[in-house]
Amino acid sequence: VEKLASFADRLGASIEKHDTPCVVGIDPDLRYLPEEHDGSPADKVRRFCLDVIEAVAGIVPVVKFQSAYFERLGVAGLRVLSEAIAAARSSGFIVILDAKRGDIGNTAIAYADGYLNPNSGSDLAVDALTVSPYLGLDSIEPFVTTAEANGTGIFVCVKTSNAGSADIQDQSVNGRPLYDVFAEALRPWTTRSVGANGYGAVGAVVGGTFPKAASELRSKLASSYFLVPGIGAQGASPKDLLPYFDRRGRGALVSASRSVIFPQHFAGATTWSRDAVAFAARCMVEEVREVLHGSSGPRPNRPSTTR
Amino acid sequence: VEKLASFADRLGASIEKHDTPCVVGIDPDLRYLPEEHDGSPADKVRRFCLDVIEAVAGIVPVVKFQSAYFERLGVAGLRVLSEAIAAARSSGFIVILDAKRGDIGNTAIAYADGYLNPNSGSDLAVDALTVSPYLGLDSIEPFVTTAEANGTGIFVCVKTSNAGSADIQDQSVNGRPLYDVFAEALRPWTTRSVGANGYGAVGAVVGGTFPKAASELRSKLASSYFLVPGIGAQGASPKDLLPYFDRRGRGALVSASRSVIFPQHFAGATTWSRDAVAFAARCMVEEVREVLHGSSGPRPNRPSTTR
Repeated sequence: VEKLASFADRLGASIEKHDTPCVVGIDPDLRYLPEEHDGSPADKVRRFCLDVIEAVAGIVPVVKFQSAYFERLGVAGLRVLSEAIAAARSSGFIVILDAKRGDIGNTAIAYADGYLNPNSGSDLAVDALTVSPYLGLDSIEPFVTTAEANGTGIFVCVKTSNAGSADIQDQSVNGRPLYDVFAEALRPWTTRSVGANGYGAVGAVVGGTFPKAASELRSKLASSYFLVPGIGAQGASPKDLLPYFDRRGRGALVSASRSVIFPQHFAGATTWSRDAVAFAARCMVEEVREVLHGSSGPRPNRPSTTR
Repeated sequence: VEKLASFADRLGASIEKHDTPCVVGIDPDLRYLPEEHDGSPADKVRRFCLDVIEAVAGIVPVVKFQSAYFERLGVAGLRVLSEAIAAARSSGFIVILDAKRGDIGNTAIAYADGYLNPNSGSDLAVDALTVSPYLGLDSIEPFVTTAEANGTGIFVCVKTSNAGSADIQDQSVNGRPLYDVFAEALRPWTTRSVGANGYGAVGAVVGGTFPKAASELRSKLASSYFLVPGIGAQGASPKDLLPYFDRRGRGALVSASRSVIFPQHFAGATTWSRDAVAFAARCMVEEVREVLHGSSGPRPNRPSTTR
C-alpha cells in the first residue's frame, strides 16, 4: 500500500512550489458581488467563485471557502460550494473549508467523515477544515483521527482575529489566558503525526490581529501550521506577520479574503475583473514575501491592497 | 402590520398544547438506520426522517435535526435535510437545527440569514439554531438580532453534556467556571426580547448530565429556554431534570435522539418500526410528565426507554 502523503507535507510542498504561504479566502458575500453577474444568487456565486479560482490559480497554493456564504443560499448554495471545491482541486489548489464545526461523539465523527474523508462519498470533502473547540477535546478528537487517517488536516480555533475573541479566549485561568491553556492541552495531538517538514495534521487558527499571542503560541505549538486570517480588510498588517512563522519562515498560512476577491470595494480597483483579483492576489503575495525575505523584489506598481 | 409571534411564545404555546416539553432529536446515523430501507444513503435518510416525523407527530411539539448527519452525505444529504425541515414544519413541528454555528461579523450575518430568516430565500431556514460561542459575544450578536427580527430563536452552547465540556467550559476564572462567567455576559441579550410567557429569543444548551450546573444557570438565565440534550443514550436520567425547569415547570426542552429514533438499538424494541418510534416517544413524554407533575398517570406498559 502506498503511503498517503500527509496534509502538512502536501501543504509544505505546495507553499514551496508557489513560493508563498498566501491563501485567498473565497467569501462570496452577496452584497459585494460584481454587478455584471446575472442570474439567481446561487448562479452569481457560482460564476464568481469559478472566476476567482481561475484568477488566482498559480499565484497562491491554497484557497479557503467560507461555508457560511454558501449555506446562506440553502441547498443551491451548497451545490455551488461542491462545484467550487471540485474546480479548485482540479486547478491544483489545496482547499480549506472554513466552517468552524464542532460537536461531540458520533456527531463529530459524521462531520469529520463528510469533510475530511475523501472516500466517504461526500461531495463536500476538502483538504482541511476549521474546527471550533468550545465543547472540549473529545469534540476535536474525531476530527484529528479522521484527518490523520486520510492525509487531510484541521485548523482548531485557538485565538481568533475579532475583538470579541477576548470574551472567552482571553479569560484568565490561573493568570494565563484560556487560549494558552487550551493550546497546551491541544499540543499532544499537534506533535503526533509530524511529517518530513516538521508539521502535523493539527493546525491552529491564530488571528493576524494578535502578533504577541502568536509569538507565544508559535513556541507552544511548534508543529502546528497556523492559519492566519485578519490580514487586509480586518485590519492586520503584513509587517505584523513574522511572529506567526518559525525561524525558517515556515509554519503559517496568511489568508486574505475581501481585499483580494472584492478589489472594487476593498483595494482601490475601479471595477471588478479577474485581472483586478489576480493583481490584488499578487500584491498580497509580494507584501508577504517582503516581510518573510526582508527584500523588496519587483512588485506591481500600486498602493497596498492588503490594508 | 401584524406583530410577529416571538419564538419563545410560539414554543411555549406548542409545549402547552402538546402538554410536554419533549424534543425528538433526529440524528440519522447511517450505522443505526433500519436495514429494510433501500436505496442510496441519502434515500435511506430521507425515508427514515419522513417516517420518524410521521411517527412522532402529535406526540412532541419540537423536532431537532442534527446537521452533521446530513452534511456527512454532502449536497444530497443537505437536500434531504431541506425536505425533512419542510415535512416537519408542515406537520406542525417547531424545528430546531442543531448545527452549532459560530463565526464573526459578516460571516455570522450570513449564517443567521440562511438559518433564521424565513424570507432569506434559503430552503434550510428553521425556527431555531444552536450556536457555539468560542469566538465571543460579537460572534453571537448577529444571530440574536436576526432571530429577534424574524420570530426565530437560538440556543447558545453554555454547558454541554459531554465529559470533555470540562476542558474549556469548566476552566476556573476567578474561582468560577467559565460557563458561568459566560452565562452572565450573555444575560443582557436573554432578557431583551422577553415575550408574554417570560422567555426570550436567546436560549441556552445545558447538558442533561449536569443538574447542579443547571440549577445555578436556571437562576442566572431566568428568561432563557434551556435545550437539554443528554437524556437517554447519553446517560442522563429524567429524574435529574427538575433543576432545568422554572418553578412553574416551564423553561426547558428535554431532547432525546437515539433512544427514540433507534429503539431497536437503544430502547429494547426487537425491530425498527414507526410504531416502535412512536412508543419510545410516548414513553419519554410520560417519564418527563411524571417528573414535572410528580404523578404517574396511565403509561405504556414497558420498561423505561430513556435509559
